[in-house]
Order: sequence, then C-alpha cells, then structure tokens
Amino acid sequence: MTHHYADRLANAIEHKRTAAVVGIDPVLERLPAPFAPQRRTAEHAARCVEGFAREVIRVVAPRVPALKINSAFFEAMHEHGVAAFYRLIRFARECGLLVISDIKRGDIGSTAALYARGHIADPPFEDISASCVPDAVTLAGYLGKNAVIPFVEQASASGRGVYVLVRPSDPGADVVHDFGGERPFYLHMAELVREWGAAPQLVGERGFSCVGAVVAPKDSASTAALRDFLPHTPLLVPGYGAQGGTAAACRACFARGAGGAVVNASRSVIYAFEKPEYREQFGDDWLACIDAACAGFAEDIASLL
Amino acid sequence: MTHHYADRLANAIEHKRTAAVVGIDPVLERLPAPFAPQRRTAEHAARCVEGFAREVIRVVAPRVPALKINSAFFEAMHEHGVAAFYRLIRFARECGLLVISDIKRGDIGSTAALYARGHIADPPFEDISASCVPDAVTLAGYLGKNAVIPFVEQASASGRGVYVLVRPSDPGADVVHDFGGERPFYLHMAELVREWGAAPQLVGERGFSCVGAVVAPKDSASTAALRDFLPHTPLLVPGYGAQGGTAAACRACFARGAGGAVVNASRSVIYAFEKPEYREQFGDDWLACIDAACAGFAEDIASLL
Repeated sequence: MTHHYADRLANAIEHKRTAAVVGIDPVLERLPAPFAPQRRTAEHAARCVEGFAREVIRVVAPRVPALKINSAFFEAMHEHGVAAFYRLIRFARECGLLVISDIKRGDIGSTAALYARGHIADPPFEDISASCVPDAVTLAGYLGKNAVIPFVEQASASGRGVYVLVRPSDPGADVVHDFGGERPFYLHMAELVREWGAAPQLVGERGFSCVGAVVAPKDSASTAALRDFLPHTPLLVPGYGAQGGTAAACRACFARGAGGAVVNASRSVIYAFEKPEYREQFGDDWLACIDAACAGFAEDIASLL
Repeated sequence: MTHHYADRLANAIEHKRTAAVVGIDPVLERLPAPFAPQRRTAEHAARCVEGFAREVIRVVAPRVPALKINSAFFEAMHEHGVAAFYRLIRFARECGLLVISDIKRGDIGSTAALYARGHIADPPFEDISASCVPDAVTLAGYLGKNAVIPFVEQASASGRGVYVLVRPSDPGADVVHDFGGERPFYLHMAELVREWGAAPQLVGERGFSCVGAVVAPKDSASTAALRDFLPHTPLLVPGYGAQGGTAAACRACFARGAGGAVVNASRSVIYAFEKPEYREQFGDDWLACIDAACAGFAEDIASLL
C-alpha cells in the first residue's frame, strides 16, 4: 500500500459519489436487542459491541468511502475491547472501506514514536497483520511537531495519513481554540499543521498532503477562511448530525474540491433505530433504520461535491 | 478507596520521604539481556516488556511513593500490550505504590466518558478488578471542560485524581504553549485547570484538589509564577533526567509544600544499566544499576521537600 492516502481517499469518494464517513462509537447501553449484553463481563461486552459494529459496517460499506472508528469505545473494555477494535479495522478494510482510527493521541516525541508503532506503522510483529492498520489516524498536535512527525513519517512511507485537531466540534473546546483574540489559537494550530504537511514528498497527485486537519464547521466565513488558509490539507469534518451540524454548514470545507474534505456522522447513523422517524417506517428492523439513515446522510453530503 | 487522592499522595510522599516518581516507558529495543525478545510476535514482546517492568517495579517500590506508567509503550503491542499494562498497574499497587497512568487522553464529552470508564472509573465489569485502575491519569485538556469533567467526576468519587497538561516538557511543545504573547497559552490552560478543580468538594484535607497539572520546569521565575497561580493544584513535573531537567529546576514547583508536587524520571532510571557510570560499578547486574539510579533520583528529589 504505497499509493498516497489523499489520492486513495479522493478515488474512494469519486467511486462512492459522496464524502460521508460513518463513525463507529458504540456504547453498551445503546446496543439493539440482538446485541444487548447478557453478562457483566468486559469480554462479553466487547463481543456485543463488536457484533453490532460488524453489522453496521456491513450495511454502510456500499454507501460511504470511509469509516471512522473511535478507540475510546473499545478501551472501555480493556484488552478485550482493544482486540475487537483491531479486528473491526481489518473487517472494515476487507469491506472496501478506508478506515480512520480516531485516537487523538499526542505525547512527546519519544513516546509518540511508540504510539505510531501501535496505530499507523506497518506492525513489526508476525502476529499482527498490516490489514489491522488503519488508513489514517486522528492526532492531537498540542505537544508540537515532535508529537506528530513520528506518525507522519510512518504514514507517508506507507500511503497512510493523519488528521491533526485544529478546530474541534465540541462547543466546550472553543474556550481553548478561540483563545488569543484577533488571531485565535485554532489559526495558530492551522498554521502549524500546514507547515508539518507542506514538504512536496508529503503531497499526492491531487495536491493534498497526507497531513490533514480536523476542522468543525462554525460560522461559514471563518470556515471558508480556514479552508483557504489550508489549501493542501485534507479536512476531516466532525459535528454533523447528533452534534447539530448540517451539510450547508460543511459546504465551505469543500471549496478545494472533492478530495479535500470528508464529513463524519456517528451517533445520528448508528443509533438511527432509536429515532421515531425511522421506527415508524422500519419497526424493530434496526439495521434497516441504520441503512436508511446512512443513505440520507450519504446523499446529503453528496450534494456538496 | 475514598480517601482523597492528594491526601493519599502526600501521605505516601511523607512515608517514602521523597516526591520522586519512576516512569515506566519500556521499549523492546532497550530491554536488558534476560528480557531481550526471542521471537517477533506482539504476544512475546508484551511478555518481555512486562517481565522487565515487573522487575523494575519490584526494585523501585521501596524507594518512591508512586509510579507513572505510559500507555503508548504497551499499545504498540495491541491487546497483548494493553493486557500487560493493566496487570502492571495492579502489580505496582500491590507493591504499595500509587500509580499514575500516563494516557494524555482528550476528546469531546460523550467520548471522554468512555475513556474515563476504561481508565479511571471503577470498572462496571465482573472480570475487571478495581485493583487494575490507577490512582490518577494524565489528560489533555485542549478540548475543554467537557473532555475533562467525566474523568474528574469518576476520580473524585473514588479517591482518584487527574493531571491535565499545562506546560509539557518537550521543548517542541513551546511553539504551542508560548503562543499568545504576554499572557501565553500555557497560562490560559493553567487558568482553566484551576477552575476545573476549584470546587470545595474536589479539595482534600491538605488543601490540594484532585485536579492536578502537568508542569515542566522551565526558567524558575515562570515556574514560580505558575506555582503561585495554582495554589490548590498538585503538580506532576516531567522532564527530569533524560530530558535534561535537574532538581534545582524543579524547586519552584514545591513552594506549596510536600504534597504539592511530584517529579517524574523515566529513562534515566529504567535504562541506567546502559550508562558507563553504573556499568563500571555493577557490571551486568542491570537491576542493581536501576536500583542505584533510583536511589540517587529519590535522594535528589528528597532535597526539595
């Protein structure tokens, strides 16, 4: 796998005709009846979560180019969850999806190298297949270049990518990212991310770097300014759906063309079976609810291309 | 375990007469001969790392009040490493050490709740013992209050604590933390951390909150100013030893008394057997090298109390 991440992503977006990414954030308390846990063990809980996630992946795979899977929801079950996490990455890739591993790791350089080994490098172990390695990871860049470069080196060597947090979706993060007045902190992070991904050997044929940014859409003027400021940076756009974002709010992220952004929705898709509008139509067929929600999401985002 | 974290830590510091914390950052390539890996599997690698770490923990336990264990070095071996990580937390606690789990997690609120379940809450699973839960974790607070509060709620309810990154040790992090000119970003983070830990029910008998801060010593004037600014915040001080910090540089962190700070050293202790000064004295007895380095470190930090 040496084809550039951003090119592979752009191809997948063209193939699926949408830039929608489904996020796998499964919590035990919200699993549908067939996967509701029967025992209070982490091992069993991990199996329930994995079984549910596999069904979700199977049903959304034909509709979207990529999947985002969040480590937190698996770490809750310690090693049992972590084993399921890597099996799911492999399964999603086997289903033809690109996989973004949402880990938001960020530590000093010597430690970042070890995180990179576990999460983005070709595994140096015979009992871990490269098919368990995601196509991209999310990172926290707040510890500076040394926290990010070990990932970038491994990613660029293997056709993989990274997305560094620049403007998170949670409004509670604004107190940090709007710090600094006229030139706020998120612009400073954007400048660093631009710099970390600027080397020509990091940029693919379509003009996008393997160093991307997580950019939640806020007001469209500032989103457009950020998009302009990061011409070669692929964006991962959170906040759609359960977090209140709309396709219209994401439009400014697509100003640089189809390969330049993907929009993630997690809870609004994978828990669609909780919503009256889907239940009325599909009853207890929870997978049909998810499929319909995914179809609507994919179509909504397709309108941005 | 409902006794307040900061009080338990202060008691442990008094009992061991030092505020030195040993950091467990084991990389496969640097393990001493008895634990050098014989096969290229993650399962075997995790056993080697765990075996080494257990010996280190056993030898340092009588000398220091607490241990810091960094998740990155175990995640590199996927679920095998993660299982070892939790067994080591348990083992260190059985050896009478307080354990700080260095995870630096930070994500939006709904996700942070799941990270908290895996890393600081009493486990809701019958097959995970509360003895695998550390006494404190490190956090990245850059996604704001919602990223931290789920941890604080779980920690305060169970006599555990958190340390939020305020001023990391890596000089490469300065480009982020010195941002903003006269009132730099790290002071902004310090203000947030102070606020998150200020509620009276979060403060223990000794006057310290269960919400601490990671504060690397830079110039002593700014360190002293930060210590003053955070009167109720226990500090975790990185950067000593391999990263170049000295006890003198850490002195300003102790201005609020013995319970107010701990100093971590990782590589300078656990890889002491690589250094000529210890090899000359102890030859191939790598554990004696570690013991001697730990004794020196503990004594050096004891001078600050």
